[in-house]
Amino acid sequence: MTQVAVVYHSGYGHTKKQAEAIAKGAQAELIAIDTSGDLTEAQWATLKTADAIIFGSPTYMGTVSWQFKKFADATSKPWFSQQWKDKVFGGFTNSASMNGDKHSTIHYFFTLAMQHSGIWLGTDVLPSNAKTAKRDDINYIGSFAGAMMQTPSDASVDEVNSGDLETARKYGERIAMFTKKMTAAVRS
Amino acid sequence: MTQVAVVYHSGYGHTKKQAEAIAKGAQAELIAIDTSGDLTEAQWATLKTADAIIFGSPTYMGTVSWQFKKFADATSKPWFSQQWKDKVFGGFTNSASMNGDKHSTIHYFFTLAMQHSGIWLGTDVLPSNAKTAKRDDINYIGSFAGAMMQTPSDASVDEVNSGDLETARKYGERIAMFTKKMTAAVRS
Amino acid sequence: MTQVAVVYHSGYGHTKKQAEAIAKGAQAELIAIDTSGDLTEAQWATLKTADAIIFGSPTYMGTVSWQFKKFADATSKPWFSQQWKDKVFGGFTNSASMNGDKHSTIHYFFTLAMQHSGIWLGTDVLPSNAKTAKRDDINYIGSFAGAMMQTPSDASVDEVNSGDLETARKYGERIAMFTKKMTAAVRS
Amino acid sequence: MTQVAVVYHSGYGHTKKQAEAIAKGAQAELIAIDTSGDLTEAQWATLKTADAIIFGSPTYMGTVSWQFKKFADATSKPWFSQQWKDKVFGGFTNSASMNGDKHSTIHYFFTLAMQHSGIWLGTDVLPSNAKTAKRDDINYIGSFAGAMMQTPSDASVDEVNSGDLETARKYGERIAMFTKKMTAAVRS
Repeated sequence: MTQVAVVYHSGYGHTKKQAEAIAKGAQAELIAIDTSGDLTEAQWATLKTADAIIFGSPTYMGTVSWQFKKFADATSKPWFSQQWKDKVFGGFTNSASMNGDKHSTIHYFFTLAMQHSGIWLGTDVLPSNAKTAKRDDINYIGSFAGAMMQTPSDASVDEVNSGDLETARKYGERIAMFTKKMTAAVRS
Repeated sequence: MTQVAVVYHSGYGHTKKQAEAIAKGAQAELIAIDTSGDLTEAQWATLKTADAIIFGSPTYMGTVSWQFKKFADATSKPWFSQQWKDKVFGGFTNSASMNGDKHSTIHYFFTLAMQHSGIWLGTDVLPSNAKTAKRDDINYIGSFAGAMMQTPSDASVDEVNSGDLETARKYGERIAMFTKKMTAAVRS
Repeated sequence: MTQVAVVYHSGYGHTKKQAEAIAKGAQAELIAIDTSGDLTEAQWATLKTADAIIFGSPTYMGTVSWQFKKFADATSKPWFSQQWKDKVFGGFTNSASMNGDKHSTIHYFFTLAMQHSGIWLGTDVLPSNAKTAKRDDINYIGSFAGAMMQTPSDASVDEVNSGDLETARKYGERIAMFTKKMTAAVRS
Repeated sequence: MTQVAVVYHSGYGHTKKQAEAIAKGAQAELIAIDTSGDLTEAQWATLKTADAIIFGSPTYMGTVSWQFKKFADATSKPWFSQQWKDKVFGGFTNSASMNGDKHSTIHYFFTLAMQHSGIWLGTDVLPSNAKTAKRDDINYIGSFAGAMMQTPSDASVDEVNSGDLETARKYGERIAMFTKKMTAAVRS
């Protein structure tokens, strides 16, 4: 059976909402990086067996949070033996501004996945950017390499954008479907 | 007297509006890259003597337009002798989506400026990203490294966002003021 | 039958050598972007039917050559209808310095591939970077997201590095093998 | 009197050597981020009054170490009030491979500096990349946006490359000289 894992850090709960939406779409297991940037042995074991790993982090000061980076640094262990080679990877991020350097975070996720000799899958939804576009349209923000969410700086966890959540859910669905079709074939 | 030059390419006129706003703020000379990606000798001469050069291009397929890139490739001539060393640089871009890989374009401008041993100046306006934020606020898009504008895919040249234009104008002002104060001191 | 296409621009012939090495590994068709940045209709048709597309360009002034970018801008046509969705993508670049902003070029290839809703595959060879490393080792340069080659500024086409060529060949092999296994499964 | 601060994290001591070389060139104060990613109040105070801040970190798994990122996240406090606006910034990194995604680290330093409304200064030394180039030449690696060092994975702290150290020292010199000339003028 195909396994997708969503490994993420969330500082205040908004990125957690996005993680849940992706996990729903991908029928994935959620792996929360704790406030110290650590995972349990059981969580590392899940990542080891997963067919796909989706990275998630808020964009803080221009890239992933330090807790996510601490996790990333700890992946040097599976990296040395290339344990994660040929897994499918994707990524998502949330920040307060429409742009807000989110592209930098997604590109970091990609850079990390490539060090692990992974296969990267972006979103597959053209942006909604005509004059009639609405804020809660799917991919209103206009991202390609991963899923983005924008939440005003003073918005509560319950106020995250429904279109951004749906963008995340569909991205999860895409990753799961691709991974399912691919896994048996490529690993054969 | 301090000279600022805005060298830009505009495909359909929207980025030209942004260029004009920056030039207004910086009291700069506008240098339009033509549809073949070329400049005249007189335009190259202006760049040579300018104290600051601001790059502008729409974001097409994830970075600057090919016409801008043709200009950038042609700067290998001043690059060889580092003619543009210690000039002040900045950059701006327009695209149809809020995010739309605009960060990629701004980072390319920076990469180019660094090859020329330049000094880079970003914007200095915190994003407007609280719940009460309005689309035409200054820096609503939330960019730091350069100025961004977002224009719906079906919007005319006259429909560019007034807040984005004001973001550009203020950025031009910042670059001009900094360049003025710095030029005599650094070049002494 | 699986088809891999290598679409590249080469200014002086060095990148062409790298393209040929990748094409050899991938048993791919070579598609050369001409000095004006154009392709023939037949070449566009090959890209349309290819299962995998590998991008190649020298790194000029910090990213792809303008001729490659002109090609990239012209891909907005297949982009609008997402004709290239779910194709496999990879990329390679050559420049005169060890670093020389080559990462910027590879990241641009990735950004472009993501706009086309593609699947990105990097190299899968750990760098050769111990004290005993030799310049002509595979992946001596130390790249992950795509293949890199370094050719001194005054080296002839016949003097390109054999290890860098082998890095390219193996990357082509990896892309072809993955594409072959995946194609039937994913497109079913 | 002009003050330059070099704030850096070093995991095994190699990046510390690079930091010392830059500090020597810039006559700068060294501020070491500890193994927990923290600074003392006195160190934060030094950064507050510094005219220039130079960032340093090894490249671990594709960007800065988590300890550096923890520091970066903590700069959200001076960021909110834009305390660091108009300071001069630069950056440097070390990793085991020639390329090794070092460009990603330097670009992150830049992204961080731009959020702080800083002024970025790169190196100003053309790469040594002709056939006669030697490994210990200044800027053999070929970086523009910041200083790079490459140290084999099994090299001791005493085996860091002398050319890379000199590249760092000269970069420190450039930043200090620029900052000195600029400070009085711009802050007037």
